[in-house]
Amino acid sequence: MKAKTDIKRTVHKYDPPDSLSSVGMTMPKHLSIADAAHPFKLECGAKLTEVDVEYETYGELSEGKDNVILICHALSGDAHVAGWDAAAKGHPERKWRLTHPGWWDAVIGPGKPIDTERFFVICANVLGSCYGTTGPASIEPATGKPYGLRFPKVTVGDWVVMEKTLLERLGITRLYAVIGGSLGGQQALEWALRYPRVLGKCIIMASGPKLSAQGLGFNAVARNAIMRDVNFANGDYYSNKKGPDNGLAVARMLAHITYLSGKGMDFKFGRERLDKQEDKRQGFEAEFSVESYLNHQSKSFVERFDADSYLYITRAMDYYDAASAWGDGDLRKACRRLHAELMVVSFSSDWLYPPAEAREFVNAILAENKPVTYVEIQSESGHDAFLVDTVPVGRLLRAYLLAPGINRRSGAIV
Amino acid sequence: MKAKTDIKRTVHKYDPPDSLSSVGMTMPKHLSIADAAHPFKLECGAKLTEVDVEYETYGELSEGKDNVILICHALSGDAHVAGWDAAAKGHPERKWRLTHPGWWDAVIGPGKPIDTERFFVICANVLGSCYGTTGPASIEPATGKPYGLRFPKVTVGDWVVMEKTLLERLGITRLYAVIGGSLGGQQALEWALRYPRVLGKCIIMASGPKLSAQGLGFNAVARNAIMRDVNFANGDYYSNKKGPDNGLAVARMLAHITYLSGKGMDFKFGRERLDKQEDKRQGFEAEFSVESYLNHQSKSFVERFDADSYLYITRAMDYYDAASAWGDGDLRKACRRLHAELMVVSFSSDWLYPPAEAREFVNAILAENKPVTYVEIQSESGHDAFLVDTVPVGRLLRAYLLAPGINRRSGAIV
Repeated sequence: MKAKTDIKRTVHKYDPPDSLSSVGMTMPKHLSIADAAHPFKLECGAKLTEVDVEYETYGELSEGKDNVILICHALSGDAHVAGWDAAAKGHPERKWRLTHPGWWDAVIGPGKPIDTERFFVICANVLGSCYGTTGPASIEPATGKPYGLRFPKVTVGDWVVMEKTLLERLGITRLYAVIGGSLGGQQALEWALRYPRVLGKCIIMASGPKLSAQGLGFNAVARNAIMRDVNFANGDYYSNKKGPDNGLAVARMLAHITYLSGKGMDFKFGRERLDKQEDKRQGFEAEFSVESYLNHQSKSFVERFDADSYLYITRAMDYYDAASAWGDGDLRKACRRLHAELMVVSFSSDWLYPPAEAREFVNAILAENKPVTYVEIQSESGHDAFLVDTVPVGRLLRAYLLAPGINRRSGAIV
Repeated sequence: MKAKTDIKRTVHKYDPPDSLSSVGMTMPKHLSIADAAHPFKLECGAKLTEVDVEYETYGELSEGKDNVILICHALSGDAHVAGWDAAAKGHPERKWRLTHPGWWDAVIGPGKPIDTERFFVICANVLGSCYGTTGPASIEPATGKPYGLRFPKVTVGDWVVMEKTLLERLGITRLYAVIGGSLGGQQALEWALRYPRVLGKCIIMASGPKLSAQGLGFNAVARNAIMRDVNFANGDYYSNKKGPDNGLAVARMLAHITYLSGKGMDFKFGRERLDKQEDKRQGFEAEFSVESYLNHQSKSFVERFDADSYLYITRAMDYYDAASAWGDGDLRKACRRLHAELMVVSFSSDWLYPPAEAREFVNAILAENKPVTYVEIQSESGHDAFLVDTVPVGRLLRAYLLAPGINRRSGAIV
């Protein structure tokens, strides 16, 4: 028999704001890193004359500026990684932050695995997102209207350059570590390839040097759902009454399934039905718990995410190909550039970035005699494990971050 | 490096109509199995006063009527299993049949694994489908308009009763074998459970006694894509200029991915890009071969399938639960009813009905001392393997069908 499903929505049992181990109330910060005289150049060739970066920091920057950990967020993530957002009130699109701490609050804070009493932690919202950094919903200087699809294509490489620029403006030239999961893991890897001697450690979770054909396919279906929505208006829906909410909802339902494992879903939902009286002869409303769960997930996602941003960010994920970018298609050749110590973490039931692909990646690194640690965490949480299995993930982070570094010359060792 | 992708659409290398091993030109047959005085009762409690069944037959019924093999088709399948449809001309929704033989033509025909020189093969289109049997697009007698969502919910059990009724009308009371893949495999299993002594052999491929939570989830996303399409009109789109084509396209793109394996997609498409000149700075049209392939698949599907039928048939797939229906939730108890010899065939890379679940099912059958054969075919073709890996599938079918039967008393042995 299946476990009884808790179809009440999960209330995350993170620490409350007053907890000793929370970073407490947080405020988003903003920095403009481009202007007409100093445009931000993108890999596609386009230039942006306005780039406003939203970021958050926790902990204190050491005098030597040698305790910085950069966190890279995933597709639907944001710069609010830990603590409770003091600015969420009055922002309907951020209202979920009133009841949820940052997305990795379980591992970041005083005494937590990424210990803010020791490290200065920073995370920036990526370019093209809808959480404060310039994106398709931002005003295009030339027209005074939201960019929509006139926003240029962005890449993981662009994000890393943006983060580097931000850090330089803050006077930070060395990183103790860069850490990311999923699309954030691609950013972390790109950091290690693009700026090999700037970071000491690089932790890549539930990610890899490229997305599979299946992953490309799922992203294509998600974008199709959005772009085929009658309210998509070719991306210019911002001043309309309704945006492509239905398409975005379908995209999220689909994506959500790919973040879970089959076994995990069987355990959590099985074939359990909703407990309601109804005439089952007709109609196709949700009858199984899993349907209701996916509906709920998509509804809350639509309230908080922008459809155009979804297009841009999934495309960046599609494009990322470390072997192409740094090794002419040869992953080993790309790995020759590496200098930071890498830790690659996969999760046994992650079928979006499966362990088999992570092992191939690790073998390419090893073949080039670069320092790498590989951990495959046994988990039924699927791709989402890096977000939800915070106990093993936290232990791993703590141990790896505190382990003595190999790269004594990198300047990145505290 | 990845294999070079053949992005030209696959032209199936089946036998041409004049081939010696083809059943040749075929004609769909029709039989009405209900009227006002003898309505067809459904499991949901509704009654249909008009049920017109489209079916096809190949080969000759033996004098003893003991050589009948029933084929059960899958979600998007139809009664046209083998040969070339002589009635396809002038029917735009069946035009693909002008260039494609029946969906299992490779295994059915004179001298083929399901040998029409020996067997009388029959397949009926399921209730609720859009290929000739009464469904949501049919005229509702009470209103004179297409049923749309007023069509009652149908189940795998209803389909089996419908097939049984059809066979009785044709004077057939014993089946040499029932064979089906995917949703057709659920029908085959239901035959073995509902009418245990009517069939001699039962071959269940890429299927199982129930759909997983993940499978339920994917079906829910597909239905959401259809029902959230602005042209869905609550299912009453038949007389409108446009139906929910976009939703159906998204549903099919998604489903198509679930029919392939990750490795298979990597091999077939990898990360290959379309060979076209374009400005990649903007726009989200297909760039990767896999996107173009999925677009093409969905386009041809929309031309040939009805969205309401998609809702009904996926729901029937969701509902099917052999353990619930025949064993009060206990699969072993359900298996006690079995009498036919079963062969369960799974495919190593099928993640919709994975081998692990097939083995559980087989172990339940064995635990009840019922005759069963289990084969796991190594394949990278995913769920679709039962349709495309016709060489191993054909060899297996030939050998199993000709093997001496155990059930001497069933009357089903030629």
